[in-house]
Amino acid sequence: MGITLGADQYGKAENRLVRIYRDTPRHEIRDVTVSTALRGDFAAAYLHGDQAQVLPTDTQKNTAYAFAKEHGLHAIEEYALTLARHFVDDVEPVHGARIAVDEFAWDRVPVGPEGHDHTWVRRGQDVRTTVVDVSDTGTEVVSGLRDLVLLKSTGSEFAGFLKDGYTTLAETNDRIMSTALVAQWRYTQTDVDWDKVWADVRRIMLEQFATVHSLALQQTLWEMGKAVLEAHPEIGEINLQAPNKHHFVVDLSPFGLENPNEVFYAADRPYGLIEATVTRT
Amino acid sequence: MGITLGADQYGKAENRLVRIYRDTPRHEIRDVTVSTALRGDFAAAYLHGDQAQVLPTDTQKNTAYAFAKEHGLHAIEEYALTLARHFVDDVEPVHGARIAVDEFAWDRVPVGPEGHDHTWVRRGQDVRTTVVDVSDTGTEVVSGLRDLVLLKSTGSEFAGFLKDGYTTLAETNDRIMSTALVAQWRYTQTDVDWDKVWADVRRIMLEQFATVHSLALQQTLWEMGKAVLEAHPEIGEINLQAPNKHHFVVDLSPFGLENPNEVFYAADRPYGLIEATVTRT
Amino acid sequence: MGITLGADQYGKAENRLVRIYRDTPRHEIRDVTVSTALRGDFAAAYLHGDQAQVLPTDTQKNTAYAFAKEHGLHAIEEYALTLARHFVDDVEPVHGARIAVDEFAWDRVPVGPEGHDHTWVRRGQDVRTTVVDVSDTGTEVVSGLRDLVLLKSTGSEFAGFLKDGYTTLAETNDRIMSTALVAQWRYTQTDVDWDKVWADVRRIMLEQFATVHSLALQQTLWEMGKAVLEAHPEIGEINLQAPNKHHFVVDLSPFGLENPNEVFYAADRPYGLIEATVTRT
Amino acid sequence: MGITLGADQYGKAENRLVRIYRDTPRHEIRDVTVSTALRGDFAAAYLHGDQAQVLPTDTQKNTAYAFAKEHGLHAIEEYALTLARHFVDDVEPVHGARIAVDEFAWDRVPVGPEGHDHTWVRRGQDVRTTVVDVSDTGTEVVSGLRDLVLLKSTGSEFAGFLKDGYTTLAETNDRIMSTALVAQWRYTQTDVDWDKVWADVRRIMLEQFATVHSLALQQTLWEMGKAVLEAHPEIGEINLQAPNKHHFVVDLSPFGLENPNEVFYAADRPYGLIEATVTRT
Repeated sequence: MGITLGADQYGKAENRLVRIYRDTPRHEIRDVTVSTALRGDFAAAYLHGDQAQVLPTDTQKNTAYAFAKEHGLHAIEEYALTLARHFVDDVEPVHGARIAVDEFAWDRVPVGPEGHDHTWVRRGQDVRTTVVDVSDTGTEVVSGLRDLVLLKSTGSEFAGFLKDGYTTLAETNDRIMSTALVAQWRYTQTDVDWDKVWADVRRIMLEQFATVHSLALQQTLWEMGKAVLEAHPEIGEINLQAPNKHHFVVDLSPFGLENPNEVFYAADRPYGLIEATVTRT
Repeated sequence: MGITLGADQYGKAENRLVRIYRDTPRHEIRDVTVSTALRGDFAAAYLHGDQAQVLPTDTQKNTAYAFAKEHGLHAIEEYALTLARHFVDDVEPVHGARIAVDEFAWDRVPVGPEGHDHTWVRRGQDVRTTVVDVSDTGTEVVSGLRDLVLLKSTGSEFAGFLKDGYTTLAETNDRIMSTALVAQWRYTQTDVDWDKVWADVRRIMLEQFATVHSLALQQTLWEMGKAVLEAHPEIGEINLQAPNKHHFVVDLSPFGLENPNEVFYAADRPYGLIEATVTRT
Repeated sequence: MGITLGADQYGKAENRLVRIYRDTPRHEIRDVTVSTALRGDFAAAYLHGDQAQVLPTDTQKNTAYAFAKEHGLHAIEEYALTLARHFVDDVEPVHGARIAVDEFAWDRVPVGPEGHDHTWVRRGQDVRTTVVDVSDTGTEVVSGLRDLVLLKSTGSEFAGFLKDGYTTLAETNDRIMSTALVAQWRYTQTDVDWDKVWADVRRIMLEQFATVHSLALQQTLWEMGKAVLEAHPEIGEINLQAPNKHHFVVDLSPFGLENPNEVFYAADRPYGLIEATVTRT
Repeated sequence: MGITLGADQYGKAENRLVRIYRDTPRHEIRDVTVSTALRGDFAAAYLHGDQAQVLPTDTQKNTAYAFAKEHGLHAIEEYALTLARHFVDDVEPVHGARIAVDEFAWDRVPVGPEGHDHTWVRRGQDVRTTVVDVSDTGTEVVSGLRDLVLLKSTGSEFAGFLKDGYTTLAETNDRIMSTALVAQWRYTQTDVDWDKVWADVRRIMLEQFATVHSLALQQTLWEMGKAVLEAHPEIGEINLQAPNKHHFVVDLSPFGLENPNEVFYAADRPYGLIEATVTRT
């Protein structure tokens, strides 16, 4: 029985890149972190230390920066597709490329009716993401977001659950439900208005989280995913990962105080973790 | 020459506390992290392990949670003052109390014209802070913010600086200037509309950062601090700590591309760090 | 075309658990973080909010703690297997369980010839890991480590690589090579002396990293993985993820100083990232 | 009443620097993060944006790297003193310099009887620190360590404490006591064998933590600080900051199990925080 090289890839991770558009006094900004990873004929580098087929990760970095000028950087999906296709089409030993981009949003500083021309303040903490994979077998675009921190101060229950000998949890018909959502959806095509669809998916998920009376986080996730697929035929499936960030009602009775769901201890760890994919049949 | 106990304090750090106001269907939320630290007659605990004068940190935690119900939690300065005064006034061995509160802001999820009644999304990443110190010698309130991430895509220079044998930096009349601001201002009184003043100080700092044409980060900080003191007589001084988050213009000339301040590499470390206090004479 | 629930799992993540063995005055310690995730008949929870089949994540947490007493906690693989089998065998709707355990190592504080009986100092920063998956289709044990930070101050080259129009990197026959290794190896059986094998795999990887003259990080990884498989027939494959933590030689020539690979700038981001699996044919 | 510039300083923070000594095949390594901060005649930069007196932070960075070659980098205190004196003595507008250095320790990879010549593995997670301040008014060296994570699995009590209406904590005569120690000690002279004293202070603190039967963390800290001052006349005072990392005994009685201090939940937040200075009279 022999020993052999299995799956492998290599690249440059977390290139921090800011692209300013300054053709007019009213600038535009795109702030991203780009990671590239290539697959291909690289066995000689592993087995014999022969780099003749290996495009340096430093070159991949250079390419990421150069393409932001050469081809522009607007929707991160478009940028990542261009970069991935370049590696696969133009670099001989490369058979597959996976480009991951995180985007950090900025708002104009509120000076004047339309905000300042060239001064920016970082918007909320959720991050827009995309992972694009181009290879001989096809093109895949999975976009999403992470660190979207949500909280419902009522409208959430957890009761009627399965009990065994290790169960001590009390049922509740009114609790805080909070999460830091990670969502990733797979597009079934690339002819998409990326920025517009992303904003709409985010809007739908927020709206569902707000308006669904939740019997469990599972149910809320399902309704969020279902609403996204119903509204966007260009999306084939969506995966949701939702930590259940526990907020415990503090027992104030030793101090002669009632606490009808008003004062909570927000715990760090452990946390529940619900993961589900909503897909099309 | 003997060995003796010098300054000491003890307390409970980072109590995560969420306070919901739910008297009407339209909830309000305050999300804070509270740290308490007490000073007083605690030498016996150190020297002899005698805890008779030591109020447990667990009790301090309980008190922080109980007070959020008993006395409410609205402006963090008011809450911290109430808590600090309690420890100093009501707990015999305590001579001084220092209460630090960080507040995390939430927006209503945008459903309907006025946002959802009880569903929230975390606002931007900057954190509102206060440190209140109450002791026999007086009361001090120092409020502020941290992690306010700002960026100017033009309107910033750095030239005409001192050079020595270790200087290689080129002068520039147009660069990106970016920071993650920490600001702390000391109030000279406690009869303050805390929420309103805090919001106005933040507004002023943002506005100055945007509108000052910057010859150096030092100058921008000075103008920010000065504007705050000019507008707010109840503030005695303000301290600003501003990392200079370097954004380097990427050299694209090896690839036959110009880069007139359009594509930047955002570096993590090292960073400049400018710290200054603006005060009254 | 309908919309349906795809893959899903849920559990309690990051239960921080410390197990002390104190049957004699010479204590033993196991310090772990346990995450549980269950798969099974949970569709009703998503589709209708019906929790009748859902064992609460709180119960999973309780079980993790109880099992550390009831069944003991020695090798993390054994503990995780016991926990996983319980969920699959004893909880009706559960078809699969995935248990991830991180272990943090402690050394005895060096007092006396054999170290202190019950006082500990945290050992290095690398973390021992295991992920155990038990289901109807079989049992899988994947163990490993992460955050094993290594550095070679010579004995590493990178030359003869592929060049294209975006390549500017200079070749080098002597550089610093440093990584924070993540390794995960899959066992082909469960009749293993877990602690002993883990320690030996770590030893082999360290030894290979030290003694292989590296023509590229790829080659070093291959030699590390190959040596592990050669020595341990109970391991079927090993996956290695190695960031190339760049250390750049600082150009001191403007200051009239030579720098023959003596003074380096250690960069944070970006970093190379090499990922490879070594497997058996 | 006017507005004026108060205290200010500026510099370059977190320069990551690795110094290799390779004069023989058996290398030596020093891995540090250096931060510089200068005080002096910099008002014009704030008030008028005039940089004529401002040595760029980029130059400070260059100097930190150049000095590691020009003057060497062995004990971090010596290196920091040399750097600080340079800024104060050689750069006209500078009146004071504060140099902070963190050092990360490496062990030789255990190959052969004396370890490998040029391959290293990061030692434990505690960091050696120094802050050196040189100005017209004198020279101060404050050295220390942080992130020294310790745990006693018995030999720690907390009882007989003060109780008020918010106290619910039970007394205990046997608990886990754990901390992540930060210690900083001030030297009263600079003619010190820095590496040797640092190692001995760390040894003393570990030994005291181990051998003192603790009635409270306060008492342990006192004994640690006292022992350091008794052994080292060149140290004038020592400040200790010790989070009380709570380990809670898990209640296993609902599952019919006893838990005589064997299974613990290690909590993240909140934590106790004890801070004390031990000094000479």
